[in-house]
Amino acid sequence: MSEGPLDHLMRLLAGLPGLGNRSARRIALHLLERRGLCMMPLAHALSDAAKNVKNCSICGNLDMGDPCSICRDERRDRSKICVVAQVSDVWAIERTGAYKGLYHVLGGLLSALDGIGPEDLRIAGLVERVQQSRQESGFVEEVILALSATVDGQSTAHYISDYITPLDARVTHLAHGVPVGGELDYLDDGTIVTALNSRA
Amino acid sequence: MSEGPLDHLMRLLAGLPGLGNRSARRIALHLLERRGLCMMPLAHALSDAAKNVKNCSICGNLDMGDPCSICRDERRDRSKICVVAQVSDVWAIERTGAYKGLYHVLGGLLSALDGIGPEDLRIAGLVERVQQSRQESGFVEEVILALSATVDGQSTAHYISDYITPLDARVTHLAHGVPVGGELDYLDDGTIVTALNSRA
Repeated sequence: MSEGPLDHLMRLLAGLPGLGNRSARRIALHLLERRGLCMMPLAHALSDAAKNVKNCSICGNLDMGDPCSICRDERRDRSKICVVAQVSDVWAIERTGAYKGLYHVLGGLLSALDGIGPEDLRIAGLVERVQQSRQESGFVEEVILALSATVDGQSTAHYISDYITPLDARVTHLAHGVPVGGELDYLDDGTIVTALNSRA
Repeated sequence: MSEGPLDHLMRLLAGLPGLGNRSARRIALHLLERRGLCMMPLAHALSDAAKNVKNCSICGNLDMGDPCSICRDERRDRSKICVVAQVSDVWAIERTGAYKGLYHVLGGLLSALDGIGPEDLRIAGLVERVQQSRQESGFVEEVILALSATVDGQSTAHYISDYITPLDARVTHLAHGVPVGGELDYLDDGTIVTALNSRA
């Protein structure tokens, strides 16, 4: 028997991150009960976003235009580039409103286990951006490595530092320590040791 | 500032059952990274299902055709109608493969708290089906009330019984008791009492 449109829809939904067969069924039913109000708008929103959203050719961020609105924004501080692994990290930092520089999305982290090498990430593009900035007016002074505090994140940070430091740009890292609002009692030992060592 | 296609998509996703802002962002990113492979197919599957899937005019089940494939299937036992609250209940019973009769989907349960009355459910249609079956060859002998063991489920069952019993059809209920594989120690008292009283 060939797969009907309902089974097909549920199979696609069940493949989304965080969803399984049961939640896919629940969502499919929810949508089918609201065909005009929810289902068609969602279908249009999906194809709309798929057609109009592009990866920025400069920083790798997802946006409607290329270059993205952050790279195009003249009020942004062009002397700082914040290097992140994923587009979601850009969104997370943008939500805080605390950073006014540019971004560079690597598209992942170096990982020997998953077989992800430097050529799989947007590292060459970052080096090129910093190099090129020296011939232009917007000199990149600081490269902020906002990568996760995991083995992969730290080895990626080391790898990038080795390329950026000779280019006369300062490489900085996010501070490690106690999360704001975090209780010491619930923190892991590694974080407490790091917070102690970086005390100020 | 007007809402971009990305924010619009995430707002729609976040409105789905079981999803919030964070999971909607995660799903949107997952899809945007696989625009051709996941996103367009999902958009097509959604509009496809929205256009082609209909509520069966006889039983209320969701299917490609009207009447649905269960109502059309000549091998089904037309002397039994299983009354359920939602289409998902039809799917749950169909997955077991243990039932070969017809269905009737109420579209919800009577609920004084939520203001759902008999006219909001497909109860009149059920009574009509049973009545009409007496003039035709496929006489409905049994109406199985497969409603949940909650206050709303049981009051709905009572309400339907009052209409079906005078029509010379037997009204039966799902058995209550210990779930298969369930341990007594973890069961609530109500279930244990019911299982004891209905022992056989």
